[in-house]
Amino acid sequence: MPEVLFPLDSTRKFTEQELMGHNRWHPDIPAVATVRPGQSFRVECREWFDGAIHNDDSADDVRDAPLPIVHALSGPFSVSGAEPGDLLVVDILDVGPIPQEDSGPLAGQGWGYTGIFPKQNGGGFLTDYFPDAYKAIWDFSGQQASSRHVPGVTFTGMIHPGLMGTAPSAALLAKWNQREGALRATDPDRVPPLSLPPLPDGAILGALTGADFDRVAAEAARTAPPRENGGNQDIKNMTKGTRVFYPVYVPGANLSLGDLHFSQGDGEITFCGAIEMGGFVDLHVDVIKGGMTMYGVSENAIFLPGNVAPQYSQWLAFSGISVTTDGEQRYLDSQLAFQRACLHAIDYLTKFGYSPEQAYLILGAAPIEGRFSGVVDIPNSCATVYLPTAIFDVDVRPSAAGPTRITSGASAPKSTF
Amino acid sequence: MPEVLFPLDSTRKFTEQELMGHNRWHPDIPAVATVRPGQSFRVECREWFDGAIHNDDSADDVRDAPLPIVHALSGPFSVSGAEPGDLLVVDILDVGPIPQEDSGPLAGQGWGYTGIFPKQNGGGFLTDYFPDAYKAIWDFSGQQASSRHVPGVTFTGMIHPGLMGTAPSAALLAKWNQREGALRATDPDRVPPLSLPPLPDGAILGALTGADFDRVAAEAARTAPPRENGGNQDIKNMTKGTRVFYPVYVPGANLSLGDLHFSQGDGEITFCGAIEMGGFVDLHVDVIKGGMTMYGVSENAIFLPGNVAPQYSQWLAFSGISVTTDGEQRYLDSQLAFQRACLHAIDYLTKFGYSPEQAYLILGAAPIEGRFSGVVDIPNSCATVYLPTAIFDVDVRPSAAGPTRITSGASAPKSTF
Amino acid sequence: MPEVLFPLDSTRKFTEQELMGHNRWHPDIPAVATVRPGQSFRVECREWFDGAIHNDDSADDVRDAPLPIVHALSGPFSVSGAEPGDLLVVDILDVGPIPQEDSGPLAGQGWGYTGIFPKQNGGGFLTDYFPDAYKAIWDFSGQQASSRHVPGVTFTGMIHPGLMGTAPSAALLAKWNQREGALRATDPDRVPPLSLPPLPDGAILGALTGADFDRVAAEAARTAPPRENGGNQDIKNMTKGTRVFYPVYVPGANLSLGDLHFSQGDGEITFCGAIEMGGFVDLHVDVIKGGMTMYGVSENAIFLPGNVAPQYSQWLAFSGISVTTDGEQRYLDSQLAFQRACLHAIDYLTKFGYSPEQAYLILGAAPIEGRFSGVVDIPNSCATVYLPTAIFDVDVRPSAAGPTRITSGASAPKSTF
Amino acid sequence: MPEVLFPLDSTRKFTEQELMGHNRWHPDIPAVATVRPGQSFRVECREWFDGAIHNDDSADDVRDAPLPIVHALSGPFSVSGAEPGDLLVVDILDVGPIPQEDSGPLAGQGWGYTGIFPKQNGGGFLTDYFPDAYKAIWDFSGQQASSRHVPGVTFTGMIHPGLMGTAPSAALLAKWNQREGALRATDPDRVPPLSLPPLPDGAILGALTGADFDRVAAEAARTAPPRENGGNQDIKNMTKGTRVFYPVYVPGANLSLGDLHFSQGDGEITFCGAIEMGGFVDLHVDVIKGGMTMYGVSENAIFLPGNVAPQYSQWLAFSGISVTTDGEQRYLDSQLAFQRACLHAIDYLTKFGYSPEQAYLILGAAPIEGRFSGVVDIPNSCATVYLPTAIFDVDVRPSAAGPTRITSGASAPKSTF
Repeated sequence: MPEVLFPLDSTRKFTEQELMGHNRWHPDIPAVATVRPGQSFRVECREWFDGAIHNDDSADDVRDAPLPIVHALSGPFSVSGAEPGDLLVVDILDVGPIPQEDSGPLAGQGWGYTGIFPKQNGGGFLTDYFPDAYKAIWDFSGQQASSRHVPGVTFTGMIHPGLMGTAPSAALLAKWNQREGALRATDPDRVPPLSLPPLPDGAILGALTGADFDRVAAEAARTAPPRENGGNQDIKNMTKGTRVFYPVYVPGANLSLGDLHFSQGDGEITFCGAIEMGGFVDLHVDVIKGGMTMYGVSENAIFLPGNVAPQYSQWLAFSGISVTTDGEQRYLDSQLAFQRACLHAIDYLTKFGYSPEQAYLILGAAPIEGRFSGVVDIPNSCATVYLPTAIFDVDVRPSAAGPTRITSGASAPKSTF
Repeated sequence: MPEVLFPLDSTRKFTEQELMGHNRWHPDIPAVATVRPGQSFRVECREWFDGAIHNDDSADDVRDAPLPIVHALSGPFSVSGAEPGDLLVVDILDVGPIPQEDSGPLAGQGWGYTGIFPKQNGGGFLTDYFPDAYKAIWDFSGQQASSRHVPGVTFTGMIHPGLMGTAPSAALLAKWNQREGALRATDPDRVPPLSLPPLPDGAILGALTGADFDRVAAEAARTAPPRENGGNQDIKNMTKGTRVFYPVYVPGANLSLGDLHFSQGDGEITFCGAIEMGGFVDLHVDVIKGGMTMYGVSENAIFLPGNVAPQYSQWLAFSGISVTTDGEQRYLDSQLAFQRACLHAIDYLTKFGYSPEQAYLILGAAPIEGRFSGVVDIPNSCATVYLPTAIFDVDVRPSAAGPTRITSGASAPKSTF
Repeated sequence: MPEVLFPLDSTRKFTEQELMGHNRWHPDIPAVATVRPGQSFRVECREWFDGAIHNDDSADDVRDAPLPIVHALSGPFSVSGAEPGDLLVVDILDVGPIPQEDSGPLAGQGWGYTGIFPKQNGGGFLTDYFPDAYKAIWDFSGQQASSRHVPGVTFTGMIHPGLMGTAPSAALLAKWNQREGALRATDPDRVPPLSLPPLPDGAILGALTGADFDRVAAEAARTAPPRENGGNQDIKNMTKGTRVFYPVYVPGANLSLGDLHFSQGDGEITFCGAIEMGGFVDLHVDVIKGGMTMYGVSENAIFLPGNVAPQYSQWLAFSGISVTTDGEQRYLDSQLAFQRACLHAIDYLTKFGYSPEQAYLILGAAPIEGRFSGVVDIPNSCATVYLPTAIFDVDVRPSAAGPTRITSGASAPKSTF
Repeated sequence: MPEVLFPLDSTRKFTEQELMGHNRWHPDIPAVATVRPGQSFRVECREWFDGAIHNDDSADDVRDAPLPIVHALSGPFSVSGAEPGDLLVVDILDVGPIPQEDSGPLAGQGWGYTGIFPKQNGGGFLTDYFPDAYKAIWDFSGQQASSRHVPGVTFTGMIHPGLMGTAPSAALLAKWNQREGALRATDPDRVPPLSLPPLPDGAILGALTGADFDRVAAEAARTAPPRENGGNQDIKNMTKGTRVFYPVYVPGANLSLGDLHFSQGDGEITFCGAIEMGGFVDLHVDVIKGGMTMYGVSENAIFLPGNVAPQYSQWLAFSGISVTTDGEQRYLDSQLAFQRACLHAIDYLTKFGYSPEQAYLILGAAPIEGRFSGVVDIPNSCATVYLPTAIFDVDVRPSAAGPTRITSGASAPKSTF
């Protein structure tokens, strides 16, 4: 195990640790440590809500989740010698739940959670169909996850950091604020909103204090969306063994990370669709000097996925096209096509005894594949979603005999406003 | 080899065959044959343009491609006993290029083609960046494809039918015409258009003649888009061994198919991004009585992919977000995010000596994976595209040494209006 | 489809074809055709017994199988420019059952067979436990095989040529005859024998006649065993897309092939454990000049398996050690350890309702993996055999609930002397 | 992380720990702990030589390795309710090197070793060709291993326990001693010996003392070979996620384990071919009452491998037959055939600049596959060994260009008697 450069004490809040992380993007957040190219180190990560979601049978905590404080990020780590224009090479040597702690009140201590976020507090991919809050607790056994709230399904986690990225330059940050503000201005009262403005309330900015804190808090970007620097990409394939190449925008690169997921389906569709947890990541870093120009990678990470992701050889696939459930034709809209494919999968799973919410939670958390199929055949995009059949206790393949219903009557807790 | 129910003579046009296929969707197109549940049979398929694209070094044929005549479909095949509400179970026993013919003027005779369609004649996923016509010819050697127009790349084909589906009911057809017309009416002069209206010109309607022909030609839906009945889904994973379940909307189901692809990347992004060819498909059909309600599958095919698709274990992945190349922020638009991921991959491959068009053609034709990654993190969707590194002659992974350039100077033919 | 250089008419015996193949190894068997490096061509192959085994419900034909006439080989093909010391590069572009014929009396016409050979006529891996003759007929549906004699199991074929190789030089042939004769001399009356001597009776030697025929027939090696030239290696992984490198011992290399298998488990344990069939192979050949020394490959083929073999992700594995069923300890004997692992798998499958012979047939025919596990831990070797669980209709994994029995009562035909 | 039931302090010898393990098999070795069905727990394991092999550049320690003290085993663990006739279900939840320690003098602290054992002290699979001692140290980076003694090769570890098993009954132990003694008596002076007798010298027997210790030490079986109870099976596929089913021979089952491997090729051919290390295993146990009869598993473990083993899609394969290097024909001897296949692979790799010993070490340590191919074609067995091409820095596939030599001149340390 490499040296721990960012330790976290599970008994204390994220803001009461030895080293202070951050939950906004800004070039002026100071590095917590400097590493050299070629170095390996361990980073401990807090789950994105810093313990606000509990291992219980109520979804009130999901309903009331404090979005202003996300994501609790570890870092930044300055890499000596890295300069704007370089590519930062990050190897994910290992990643997992909180080590040596398999029970306790914090997600990552032997358990994690997924939630359907309510439309009034975050929403999700299918929020028009699922406007209320739901929660499922998942228990870990080795690399397997199962839930008392979603019976009859067990899968091997594709453990990965949902969020990792380099610090933006001041110019890049300004561009983000400009373009996201412009979008928000087109419909400022929308629920959920079109984008999130800088928000001093709840901001955590590392060692910054006083006037610096106030200035940065007013400018710093929220961490919800992925952007040019990587960020909250929620790419389930960034598992152990992955090598990522990030553009460097500030001296030292200033790498930060967090939002660990025990498992996630493509799209992380219930918003908090991944199984959220705290834990650790072991990283190795290196630098390709001048790599951004040399390889034409000026924005958005490129990566080589690892070779130890769970293997499944049989899949049940659903397709969708870009027509709304109201029958309105949209033009080549893969976002919509994927929604329809997911809705089809949900409809299907209800025939096996799942509630629609349980099916939705499965699609968010299990290692499902979501693929662009046809994207050019006007006016319909076609998207597909693939479920590994082996994750279910019953045979979910269609046959003349009809569906076998799961036996357990467990349900996912619900809360409404 | 099962009995050939739909033979095609490679020396004659699609309209001069023993049995007449069709290129529009309509419930009144009569079946060419009736099969029973449990039966296996072979269907020969003509490439979608019926020979209009040639094995040469000019892209004029792509520029001038006769879109009104697509897709040349084999069928419909009526399945005895199938009734509306059933699921039609279709096994793809085998699929391949034109059997026993490995050279000749017709795509599928040992070769196939991909094209970048010009903005004025069909367009494509990245048509704003690639408005002109390009073509690449791919030669088959066993299940491997390579191209004199795209050097340094060889891959194993994921051979599949791009288009397969059941006939719509009259009500379903009416719904298509209504909704697609409504969309088109919002911007009737757009190039490329928002959707395609019924078009009697070029229509092929099986055995229909006279007034029936005229009536049906005026109503029948174009075959370009995928719809509730399956249709032109362009799902690269529907390879040999796949079992598909189609909703049945008319008595006999009336299954049709065509648009065979030797290989295709997810999205088929250059419009004619798949390697187009004629060939054969061996099918086995069965029926699940009442399956639509029993399994909640009232629209859009579900399927179990086969287990003999080409295997790759190392991938190079690119990501994109829903910000336009002009810097405009869009709201959770996976279509755009996938475009940006593809553009990033194209930029990257040019560093290895490919022209942007060659890189675009590779993404269309090779077995790339296109995945939805994050779809809920406002305002940015994140999409990813994965290239198998083994398809390239040179090592395309980033390193401090910089990219190795491909040696050949071959280029893809271009034509402009 | 490349040009057919070795056609076979299914209505005629192997010895009554346009081109005469062979069933012995000898450098003086003349080539049937000459091909150039870089050429692709099709070879049709007869099943190894030339039609002696029938699609019926008796095992008499297996009991009485005419071993002196095997293997019916297509070739030799001379490769222009190939000389001793080179490596012959052979790409298996495609391989399959008899094209365009899906029913008929010849294995490969939509069906194939496996047999347990009786101890008095060939024997097999477990002949001491299975001394009698059994047969199973397998029907092909696309790339799937199932059998009326072995219910409840269906698998995707790993189609491959069981036998392919270059001609031996005179010196190499002499070495074979010497060493195999010496072994046989240690126990000349053993049943089954320790090795097979040259046998003029039943010999087929291509175009040779008269005195040449007699001389060669007296010297030529039997085709049963694999040897330095490749030969009857029965490597299930030499599927479509494989590239093999054979040592060249005579000018032109003189490549021959046959013994096609629709599927086979590692070891082909029932002797005729693979699903035997006639069919076709499409080959592409090339030459690496001086490759034998350059790569240190002076004997036994090396190869790069293809990437379209069937994929399974869940396996049930059995282990065995080198102790006989009588309890005698042997020293590091992997042959014995693998026998014990197979016997364990057979015992296990009988709990699910299979007869021991059916279980044995499954291990011979299905895509099982047989692996060396520990080979150095005196005195016990450990060998393992892996069954893909997805090939069975019932769940064959152990659980507290006990085994589920297959429902059908079908059995495999048996014949005794 | 589950509770640690068997802790090990890396600063103390195996015999000076809080709980005393064992290095012999005997029913009377008392359990160190009792676990209940359904319980998860962590077991720490010492590397098999308890620290006798060092992270340095001399092979003297391998030459002089103290074989009487192996294997340092953790346990036995008694499972409440398990009785003879049951199957013990063991899930390998996780397995890895010594947690939280990535440097230090003990194998498992960030590094491991492989050795070629000399003929006079253990030998190995190819000891007649490699009679001297060699060593290679492998450094771990995440799940990757590389060695300063074997340049140009890096691979992902298939981490697994080499040894795990239940305690033998008195009757079973007596059978072992009888049969292994009988074999040894056939050539008592052989070097290496045919089997190993009970050896009080160096015996570690848990909490036993006095007369009990002396009695048990005189009877207890050595741990080198795999036997009916599982034991030193060295099955590289027993990775994380595997479920194993062991026969139960004594009340409580008395499970023990050790001999952790960071990686191993099939066969573990250099004797100490796996990358040896200490570390931890997280287990979950359960019991199938009466499972031995119910499933016909009266000896030798059966198992379901996990689904997170490293994936490779391109392999270079070598074949061998049962003829000695002196040209002597043996009868269907897969042990010999596999030796020949391995020797062919070694010859091949030397063309790329490896010494024969380095090539041999690669085959022992890397995730190579060793398969039984033909086992019935008298007189030659055919065995195959598959190397994943991606583990090498250079392209090891044959081509007309000839082999590329690795650049580094590092060599593996050697020691002779």
